[in-house]
Amino acid sequence: MKMTIVVHSGDFDKVMSALIIGNGTLSMGGEVTLYFTFWGLQRLVRGELSGGPLSKMHFLGLGKRMMRKRMKRNNVATPERLMEDFKALGGRVIACEMTMELLGISKSDMEERWIDVYGAVGMYVKETETADKTLFI
Amino acid sequence: MKMTIVVHSGDFDKVMSALIIGNGTLSMGGEVTLYFTFWGLQRLVRGELSGGPLSKMHFLGLGKRMMRKRMKRNNVATPERLMEDFKALGGRVIACEMTMELLGISKSDMEERWIDVYGAVGMYVKETETADKTLFI
Amino acid sequence: MKMTIVVHSGDFDKVMSALIIGNGTLSMGGEVTLYFTFWGLQRLVRGELSGGPLSKMHFLGLGKRMMRKRMKRNNVATPERLMEDFKALGGRVIACEMTMELLGISKSDMEERWIDVYGAVGMYVKETETADKTLFI
Repeated sequence: MKMTIVVHSGDFDKVMSALIIGNGTLSMGGEVTLYFTFWGLQRLVRGELSGGPLSKMHFLGLGKRMMRKRMKRNNVATPERLMEDFKALGGRVIACEMTMELLGISKSDMEERWIDVYGAVGMYVKETETADKTLFI
Repeated sequence: MKMTIVVHSGDFDKVMSALIIGNGTLSMGGEVTLYFTFWGLQRLVRGELSGGPLSKMHFLGLGKRMMRKRMKRNNVATPERLMEDFKALGGRVIACEMTMELLGISKSDMEERWIDVYGAVGMYVKETETADKTLFI
Repeated sequence: MKMTIVVHSGDFDKVMSALIIGNGTLSMGGEVTLYFTFWGLQRLVRGELSGGPLSKMHFLGLGKRMMRKRMKRNNVATPERLMEDFKALGGRVIACEMTMELLGISKSDMEERWIDVYGAVGMYVKETETADKTLFI
């Protein structure tokens, strides 16, 4: 199976869901491409994946610190670790150029080691043409 | 057709959309699996599907009581009824174990008659491998 | 490829994402059907696609006026223009009748030139049966 996921949301829990599903699919032999756009794209700015001013203060009704503690206790990986695993498992990341232009974000602001390619919606569509599973998160 | 839907959101209107699409697909001969996770999982706690402290106070700009009234007048089923129909039509429900562990929810807290199986993302991926339609809600 | 997109959200950025992905797919020879329901349906009321009382005041942390300015400077089309392009490229729009009934919206309130057909979830499922890509936005 091949899955493409549009990561439009920048919500902490939604980005985690994208990465958990992505890693699960890769682990079971699938192919996965994440297309980060709009609020999701902002999570690829250095230091923003789980921290920074953009992060949600509440997660499942818990404060972020409490959440981190419970995640650790339950061996749930942090978003950074999930992303590292995603790349190590062969996952592919496209960063949306339109969002970068709209927000005045340059490549030097980005966590570049996570990004395979910068592209527009046409690149997403091309990837999706050969995918048999598609999600929008 | 076989559809899998990740129910990540716990918003009243989103859960309703998931169930309406699920029931529509089942009614037309399709197969549907719902994977409840994060906020969506919390809706499977007893009494939380449309009531309880987690419910949104506003729905399409209307109060919840007004919404219920209009739904009734227009013969739109409640979420509980939609879920009963979903099960009666042969729909399948997976409850995300990771979310339960993170939030300290046990099986005895859950509306167990709606749940076919408790599982992790691997179970979702396995179900999705044979699906030709996939949604994330 | 054939894609169906449920436009459940009425958020300015989400509707834009739906149209950008839709237009990208149509431009590359695909077929696309948008099913507007719940908050998304409200965007098809005359004057509501990007303006009106329903519009979000903030977009990516910018005010709406600033956003419009940056979009113009970066040659990003407005939602209205994206919708016109979507129709010109052969995209198909279904408006959810259940939402209209629930909210007491009549056809005369709608931007009728954008709507191909009024229908319920069964029409969405029928369209989706022959689709190989599905999104819920």
